[in-house]
Amino acid sequence: MEKLLGGHGATPGGGHREARESREILEGARKQVAEFLGTNDPERIVFTSGGTEAVQSAILGWAEAAVEGVLYLSSMEHPAVELAIRKLERRGFSVVRIPVDGEGRLLWKKIKPEGPGLVCVHLAHHDLGTVQDLKQAAVFARSAKAQLFVDATFGAGWVDLPKELGGVDLLAVSGHRLGGPKGAGFLWIRSGFPWKAQLEGGRQENDQRAGTENMPAIAGLGAALAEWKKSGEKFRKTAGEAQRMLLEGIRKKVSNAKLHGTEPGPGRSPAHLGISFAGLEAEALALVLDRVGVAARGGSGCVTREMKIPPAMKAIGAKPEEARSLILFTLGAATPTPDVSLAANLISEAVKRLASSLPTSF
Amino acid sequence: MEKLLGGHGATPGGGHREARESREILEGARKQVAEFLGTNDPERIVFTSGGTEAVQSAILGWAEAAVEGVLYLSSMEHPAVELAIRKLERRGFSVVRIPVDGEGRLLWKKIKPEGPGLVCVHLAHHDLGTVQDLKQAAVFARSAKAQLFVDATFGAGWVDLPKELGGVDLLAVSGHRLGGPKGAGFLWIRSGFPWKAQLEGGRQENDQRAGTENMPAIAGLGAALAEWKKSGEKFRKTAGEAQRMLLEGIRKKVSNAKLHGTEPGPGRSPAHLGISFAGLEAEALALVLDRVGVAARGGSGCVTREMKIPPAMKAIGAKPEEARSLILFTLGAATPTPDVSLAANLISEAVKRLASSLPTSF
Repeated sequence: MEKLLGGHGATPGGGHREARESREILEGARKQVAEFLGTNDPERIVFTSGGTEAVQSAILGWAEAAVEGVLYLSSMEHPAVELAIRKLERRGFSVVRIPVDGEGRLLWKKIKPEGPGLVCVHLAHHDLGTVQDLKQAAVFARSAKAQLFVDATFGAGWVDLPKELGGVDLLAVSGHRLGGPKGAGFLWIRSGFPWKAQLEGGRQENDQRAGTENMPAIAGLGAALAEWKKSGEKFRKTAGEAQRMLLEGIRKKVSNAKLHGTEPGPGRSPAHLGISFAGLEAEALALVLDRVGVAARGGSGCVTREMKIPPAMKAIGAKPEEARSLILFTLGAATPTPDVSLAANLISEAVKRLASSLPTSF
Repeated sequence: MEKLLGGHGATPGGGHREARESREILEGARKQVAEFLGTNDPERIVFTSGGTEAVQSAILGWAEAAVEGVLYLSSMEHPAVELAIRKLERRGFSVVRIPVDGEGRLLWKKIKPEGPGLVCVHLAHHDLGTVQDLKQAAVFARSAKAQLFVDATFGAGWVDLPKELGGVDLLAVSGHRLGGPKGAGFLWIRSGFPWKAQLEGGRQENDQRAGTENMPAIAGLGAALAEWKKSGEKFRKTAGEAQRMLLEGIRKKVSNAKLHGTEPGPGRSPAHLGISFAGLEAEALALVLDRVGVAARGGSGCVTREMKIPPAMKAIGAKPEEARSLILFTLGAATPTPDVSLAANLISEAVKRLASSLPTSF
């Protein structure tokens, strides 16, 4: 990235030497993504400005090609998915909602095929951390003669993707959750899959995404995925250990702490804990956590204006006081153990401090 | 940018200290853009992934809010504009084409208002370098009760924008043509202007563009525009001198060289020369130029698949052999004079070399 930011800055589209150099870097990054995915279909990897663009362009590009169909999804998808679907619903597509269980697992057996269309499923949930069963998703999609879109913006790298992307037709990934820089993500489209480019103009990305390529970010994304391919197992292990330790520490010290989503293990992304502290308000607790030195998110990571209660908390049947007090903790590929045990102490301190400031004891 | 790429990487949306730091940088960059534009309306500056997204989102976002109307534009707009308009034409919007003169100036007096809608005009043309008269554009838009979109992805910084953006309702700018990094541009929307966000999901950018903010690129764009505000006059002067010198050198040494668009001066962007070499093929000449050490673009910078002749060359009535031999030379804010006179010599050498290799002399 440094080399590109300080270099000649040629776009990869020209015929001159500098352009060819840029083109090599661009195609090198695409190859790194293909290797990370385990696909031999690199031409249909489209670099985007991030996860949101990848998701929206996947769904809306499918719709433009398909013209009509049934959209299958849960009520707790990320707003980037949910709002694309609502737009299509207004245009006449029909929608089938997939119910979820108390830990946020999609219940594929509770719905019936209602015609060809698009099945939308996330790899791991952005608020709950729960991992979805993509094999079941693919079986359902096949039975409905529908196609399968996987929103892997949360979960990619941290959770296994199907081998050679079997059963998946469209995939969206965000780079900065895998050690890549902000400003780069990608969309993968199965060869022969009907899909239409959503950004039109120049002929970049094999006519699949117009706009001058963000070379530094793309190169950074490629490098991050190459590193992930090499050391991903280690990253997962480190984050997973930090996750268990943090959860255990919080549970030991904070009586009203409750984990939402599945327990740590193969059913949960190791990079994430969503814990509620019934009786407290998430925003207030996040502020006190910040004071004591813990950076965490109060409330759902991504909600639209009208979503007062995070949709996932509603979908899994969480109590209102749990939904209002959800805090998201992110674990990293290199979160050190001493930091985690310190964090558990600080979280306990913050909860006590906030609780003692409230008029009623709890 | 370096600080952000190596820093904590917090997104600006959270409540903790790191998020607040990111938010300050983000809003600082927005203020730098507002100062560059001379507007006191910074909340309606929306950072995008670049010029293409800004342009497409401007037009399609207007259309989503307006529902119907007349689209006024020339036949030689950038494909990012042209393809958005064609999409809207398919959805039922009507289109009025603005004719151009032999140097690419839009002839506002040759069209009549046919109803409210959107007038689309570029600031400077990406192939011709010709500057458009935005005052006339604004007068026409007012007479049609239409709104005015200015595609300033070519020209911003190099050519004056109207004072306080008077008469302009929507403006798209690309950062990397102003010394900013790739991956950042912006859209400006007049307050109260009906427009709908095109990327939906998270609530970033005041609900006007979803997706994790590309902090390093945005900070770089802000810094570049701050530098431009300070030294823009000098940049223009340097590029303008290089432009005149290169044109003079080529004209002196290459008999079939012909400038397209207006002569250097206030009617032309100082960053750009579009010259044809009738009798030669642009692609072949660009390759020979590369061999001798001149990096230039053969053919139009941006064409769609079906555009065999660059639309601007067709619109100004260029001969086919001129259209086929168009080379674009880009001058920079720091192009050194000795390089320019060397370039003129090398261009003359390349033209002679290619011409002598052809079966028929010319």
